Amino acid sequence: MMPIDVCFRLMGYGVPTPMRLEENQELIDSLRLSLVADVGPITRRALLARFGSPGAVFEASPDELRGVKGVGPKLLDRILAAPDEVDALREISLCREHGIEILTDTDDDYPRLLHEIHDPPAILFIRGRLLPRDAVAVAMVGTRHATHYGLAQAEKLAAGLARSGVTIVSGLARGIDAAAHRGALSGGGRTIGVLGSGLLRMFPPEHAALADEVAQSGAVLSELPPEFEPMGGNFPQRNRIISGLALGVIIVEAPERSGALITARLANEQGREVLAVPGRIDSRPSRGCHRLLRDGATLVESVDDVIEQLGPLVEAAPREDGTELHHPAELTLNDMERKVLDAIGAEPTGVDHLVSETGLPVPRVLATLSVLEMRRLIRRLSGTTVIRV
Amino acid sequence: MMPIDVCFRLMGYGVPTPMRLEENQELIDSLRLSLVADVGPITRRALLARFGSPGAVFEASPDELRGVKGVGPKLLDRILAAPDEVDALREISLCREHGIEILTDTDDDYPRLLHEIHDPPAILFIRGRLLPRDAVAVAMVGTRHATHYGLAQAEKLAAGLARSGVTIVSGLARGIDAAAHRGALSGGGRTIGVLGSGLLRMFPPEHAALADEVAQSGAVLSELPPEFEPMGGNFPQRNRIISGLALGVIIVEAPERSGALITARLANEQGREVLAVPGRIDSRPSRGCHRLLRDGATLVESVDDVIEQLGPLVEAAPREDGTELHHPAELTLNDMERKVLDAIGAEPTGVDHLVSETGLPVPRVLATLSVLEMRRLIRRLSGTTVIRV
Repeated sequence: MMPIDVCFRLMGYGVPTPMRLEENQELIDSLRLSLVADVGPITRRALLARFGSPGAVFEASPDELRGVKGVGPKLLDRILAAPDEVDALREISLCREHGIEILTDTDDDYPRLLHEIHDPPAILFIRGRLLPRDAVAVAMVGTRHATHYGLAQAEKLAAGLARSGVTIVSGLARGIDAAAHRGALSGGGRTIGVLGSGLLRMFPPEHAALADEVAQSGAVLSELPPEFEPMGGNFPQRNRIISGLALGVIIVEAPERSGALITARLANEQGREVLAVPGRIDSRPSRGCHRLLRDGATLVESVDDVIEQLGPLVEAAPREDGTELHHPAELTLNDMERKVLDAIGAEPTGVDHLVSETGLPVPRVLATLSVLEMRRLIRRLSGTTVIRV
Repeated sequence: MMPIDVCFRLMGYGVPTPMRLEENQELIDSLRLSLVADVGPITRRALLARFGSPGAVFEASPDELRGVKGVGPKLLDRILAAPDEVDALREISLCREHGIEILTDTDDDYPRLLHEIHDPPAILFIRGRLLPRDAVAVAMVGTRHATHYGLAQAEKLAAGLARSGVTIVSGLARGIDAAAHRGALSGGGRTIGVLGSGLLRMFPPEHAALADEVAQSGAVLSELPPEFEPMGGNFPQRNRIISGLALGVIIVEAPERSGALITARLANEQGREVLAVPGRIDSRPSRGCHRLLRDGATLVESVDDVIEQLGPLVEAAPREDGTELHHPAELTLNDMERKVLDAIGAEPTGVDHLVSETGLPVPRVLATLSVLEMRRLIRRLSGTTVIRV
């Protein structure tokens, strides 16, 4: 039995709070179900749709389980054996020992964007904290064999985006991934690293220090239990989480066959923006980017190119200064533009009202409205009335 | 009076042939009209629509001329004074002296593609020859201040295209233009240089030798009379001819404000394909290309990227080997693909027929049909019947 003060859920701004026993049992069952080999997000969803909760799955009879789509004889045996064989408690103590928090997809703090994908991970193991403002996130990925050019651009773009308040998501791999995280850190912003292994099996090992820094300025997370060994290949399962956490994915350098292109495809399927940085046509690591651009990806030269392309947020995200962000484009506003935008309500607002509200002279207000209109943050209803988009 | 054997028209494959006197007078009037200051292609067209021929324009009364759109008091005076003041004969002797041929837009040999634009030049002064196979042409333009990268790519792409049988059109300017012409020459292909000055006022002067080479492997041409001085700026008038002569325009390097972007816009308005070569995002001369790519231009990495993008020809163009070309994509075929394609008629054709016609084994024919289908040169009507697209 676990002590009742075990605290693995990420509450609000990530301050761990004591957990009640019944919640704890829920977590144990949820984790246990996710640890059953071959119970992926799709089968898990089918099981939960049928039985209501992970605990109920383990109480179901063989006949009931057999009736669920995706449950064959092998999987049936594994589910039936799980309560005896799958040691969820051990994983939980391991996490506790190493400061790893566990977030399940039923938690309020589970990232909303990630929840929307086809196959969201049931469990996230997290070092560091996910914050509500990480809803304004962009993923940046690319080849492990990047050129100096690619690394420099990744770092520069990530730094600029982070400075603007965009969280940078990447995979903590060698090459572009590491440059993206480093850029976000140097920009003083937030960054999230998603691993294709357990959090205690950091790969590549030489990025352990970088992972620590990322965890301190954001989070390092994985859907795999802490001691899960790195999977071979391109980590496509991991990549869906990278794109799933972000509003868009920027591919910086990627040869024609590259895991980064898989992430781009997943991003596209998830309805995320796909953006690519071009390069020289005689540079192999830019070929994949050029293919994406041919297929309709947005060409990225600057931070503004990225922010302009990101659609409105599902729900307003809190900003560091306590205000709310409704649209990523607001991140590029200067103080005056921000002031005028803040004075525009959900209802049609007149220029006169804006002038008295902001104390700015009429021409200044009108010029600022033009900027806001150009950034598609407001719409003119008439010459003197505007509304938020 | 000119001697009746004056020969300025380009006949068939460019062999000058004697010209009859009445044709000659037509040429004199046509040239004279084009030499009247401010009679551009649009006003000229209006005048010809009203009076039928250049000769009739000069016989028209002031009142009749005044009724034509675009003819104000100044232009009226100029037209009325032209027969006395505009010395078309002098231009014609000058051309004769320097081996310059004159082509009017009523000549059969006037390039058909150029004829289709909104404002085709009435007269072309030509050194060298325009050939029917120049109908398969691509323009390549870019900044005068190109990087080593841009020059190398322009030359390489132009060489590859020229080698495939595509005529390269450009402006004989410094930078990308010159690299495009040089590439076409090194590829052993054809190239056309369009000047923004008269043919006897070569600009830049250091390209005189290059212009001679271009004239020998294609043509150097201008709509301006031979002694017309180079116009300042970006030669936008000239640029419409560059794009007008081509099926598509490739921009290789162009900063944000560049004459090459004007050519791209004109090409777009003329319904030509716009293609652009990407580069590093930290390279200013690639910025214009990136803007074009954002606006929907086709990204070019290779010769095939270009050829695949070019639509079907208005009419079949003769090839060097005497066969006919129906679609630019045919330029990329190997001998076997060519053989199979040639055996497919305008009517639905069966695989059996292709096997007996080509002597190739069935699997080879089927594989080749897949290639032809992929290149959109044929369409399958059933498993065993195909037709040309």
